[in-house]
Amino acid sequence: MFKTVRGMRDLMPVDAERMRYVEQVSRTISKIYGYDEIITPVLESYDLLAAKTSEEIRERMYTFKDLGGRKVAMRPEFTASVARLVAAKLRNEPKPMRLFSVGSLYRYDEPQYGRFREFWQSNYELFGSDRPETDAEILILTNDLLTKLGLQNFCFKVGHTGILRGILDEEGLDDAKQNSVRQLLDKKLWTDALVVAREAGVSQKCLDVLESLFETRSEDAFKVLESVKETVRGYESSVAAVENLWRILELVKDSGAQLDVVVEAGFARGLEYYTGIIFESYIPGLDIALGGGGRYDKLIQLFGGEPIPAVGVAQGIDRIVLALKKQKVSPKTAKNRVVVISIKDESMAKALELSDMLRKSGLPVEVAVMGRSISRALADADRRGLAYAVIVGPKELEEKKVVLKDMNKGEQRTVPISNLTQEILAGST
Amino acid sequence: MFKTVRGMRDLMPVDAERMRYVEQVSRTISKIYGYDEIITPVLESYDLLAAKTSEEIRERMYTFKDLGGRKVAMRPEFTASVARLVAAKLRNEPKPMRLFSVGSLYRYDEPQYGRFREFWQSNYELFGSDRPETDAEILILTNDLLTKLGLQNFCFKVGHTGILRGILDEEGLDDAKQNSVRQLLDKKLWTDALVVAREAGVSQKCLDVLESLFETRSEDAFKVLESVKETVRGYESSVAAVENLWRILELVKDSGAQLDVVVEAGFARGLEYYTGIIFESYIPGLDIALGGGGRYDKLIQLFGGEPIPAVGVAQGIDRIVLALKKQKVSPKTAKNRVVVISIKDESMAKALELSDMLRKSGLPVEVAVMGRSISRALADADRRGLAYAVIVGPKELEEKKVVLKDMNKGEQRTVPISNLTQEILAGST
Repeated sequence: MFKTVRGMRDLMPVDAERMRYVEQVSRTISKIYGYDEIITPVLESYDLLAAKTSEEIRERMYTFKDLGGRKVAMRPEFTASVARLVAAKLRNEPKPMRLFSVGSLYRYDEPQYGRFREFWQSNYELFGSDRPETDAEILILTNDLLTKLGLQNFCFKVGHTGILRGILDEEGLDDAKQNSVRQLLDKKLWTDALVVAREAGVSQKCLDVLESLFETRSEDAFKVLESVKETVRGYESSVAAVENLWRILELVKDSGAQLDVVVEAGFARGLEYYTGIIFESYIPGLDIALGGGGRYDKLIQLFGGEPIPAVGVAQGIDRIVLALKKQKVSPKTAKNRVVVISIKDESMAKALELSDMLRKSGLPVEVAVMGRSISRALADADRRGLAYAVIVGPKELEEKKVVLKDMNKGEQRTVPISNLTQEILAGST
Repeated sequence: MFKTVRGMRDLMPVDAERMRYVEQVSRTISKIYGYDEIITPVLESYDLLAAKTSEEIRERMYTFKDLGGRKVAMRPEFTASVARLVAAKLRNEPKPMRLFSVGSLYRYDEPQYGRFREFWQSNYELFGSDRPETDAEILILTNDLLTKLGLQNFCFKVGHTGILRGILDEEGLDDAKQNSVRQLLDKKLWTDALVVAREAGVSQKCLDVLESLFETRSEDAFKVLESVKETVRGYESSVAAVENLWRILELVKDSGAQLDVVVEAGFARGLEYYTGIIFESYIPGLDIALGGGGRYDKLIQLFGGEPIPAVGVAQGIDRIVLALKKQKVSPKTAKNRVVVISIKDESMAKALELSDMLRKSGLPVEVAVMGRSISRALADADRRGLAYAVIVGPKELEEKKVVLKDMNKGEQRTVPISNLTQEILAGST
């Protein structure tokens, strides 16, 4: 007996429907915000994918040689592919460019709750502007997506890479050292991060500032930013980062968007390429981010392009599906499913014809195809939770009629074919 | 500069939109015909995928070992995965089961027109009934899909594997020999097929019958079936196959579905597992099938299940996209795109707020984020083909108004914010 490969999943109808629901709402959001969809391949050259991702992800890629001897890998994220496309094909397109992508990604991680080796994301990226309204747009868009999906009480954890970078630059730490600190912070190992910073030779003032920052988080975003600004005084570009984050959150607030924001000054995301705001979204009781993003102004030039500022967000579709389940949100499913049953073989063509007629009004219609007796076909329809059965028999057909059975009420009556669609639509609304 | 891997494509916005349009209409069809969507992984065990596919496809799979040493491959088609799922997880579910899947598939073919190494299909399969109404349903469904997409003048090439099999079984040819003949027919090498049959030792009567069959094709389906039935007289199970095909096409015709059907008695499809009707869909001037399918009653048991009869169709999304282009069918795109431009930084939050208000009515809205002057922002909106510009400035805001510019007419006027959505929706319908 064959099985799925370890870490891979089959999504059965209920889960597949949730997954497609999140995908479809993601696409609707892309359209109303003006993000054009692009589709990039699942297989990319290994060198492309390895160029900017962290070593951790690089080692967990599905990497192999294709039949032409090319070293390829299955994409572990979208950004490298989108950056390739922007650098190679869209470099001279007028700015801004807003791009949307959605699809499956692959990482050989240890399977665990909310983490799969094949997983799905929807991805929004805005290229060409470093103005705070773009960062605000990405936050508002994410808020809008989660709201439209029907999630509640979600919140945003927000930080700014420039705060830490401003301090560590000033203290003379090189990129490698800064990354070590950042990776420890990403894992919430605050004390270890301080130890590494101390060993890298930062000043005592710096250590005090860092310790104070790591403890700073609050739901009153502007109060915490005021306090952080005070804490980092003297580190000029850190101050500028705080002011940038302030302006972004001010725009969000003044636009009337209802975002529940928690600012964490010591917040770091794993990927090294962020240069500005970073954020993740959460719901209560689910300790994994539904999605996350930030600003990465220096990424495109890595792929051979001009420097193009960029901000983006990746929504974890699988995690959002978990959140929907947790909050018991179900996509609306058709409540008016119909089965059309032909009593005899002679009326089967008519049953097919009537099915077509009903489908033209958008009704979901199954034809009974097992050759069962009426009573068994009705029992099957009942078990499947179908709403209506249309019974097509030669006797009623002579009068251009069929029998319509309301499966919920258990009532049936003979109706003219010319009224059938109307009767079902009226009953189902 | 990084590139896509050979044979892989980026779909830019216009093509991605066409692709998603075909996918979405495919999904709508699945819903109104009662096919439940499932999502199976792109990566499957090599053994599963190799179990039933042809050697030709097997050799062109993207095969490799994952980091755990498992021999895996990227799926070259859906049917093996769906059959695995049915055999392992749905074996005891009540019949019929109607399943839908859509996604990307991978074959290391030589790239050419209409053939890509990463390509997309939507796939409908009905399990549990071998009755002719199910074959008819699959044909009607495919016809409905192509019609709904806006294609015209498409036709169905239809055959039945039982016709040839009935003859060759009777003549005592084993499966391997029969496959050789079938594969030559699939490549339209009629003469070569006759040579192979002769060398396999079939009777002269058989050769005459085959030659006559290969020449038989006509758009008058029933006339051709009558003539084929006459030709194969004496080969009992061939006669039964002709009668089965007759009944299927009769059901389709009597249901009122308008299918343009060409019956080809010598039609063969590459895959060995078909047991009944086979068909492909075409548009004039495009010599590659848009999709194809048939009946395969003995497939599930290969995967360890009970024998479960099945009929299905795979729609080639990329080929349908080519057909849409050829027939100049475009998916309807939003004609009322709006840009909201803030004159000053102080009014940016208001611009974001108004964007949100407009999006709530489903309007596609971009915010101007480049910090450009009004005239440059308007020139950009014009170049992008946007329909409306909303200009937000402090002076008008004092009176709760904004400037609305109709980009097509080049006219602008001041409108109260409370009327803005209405004005745009009214103008755009």
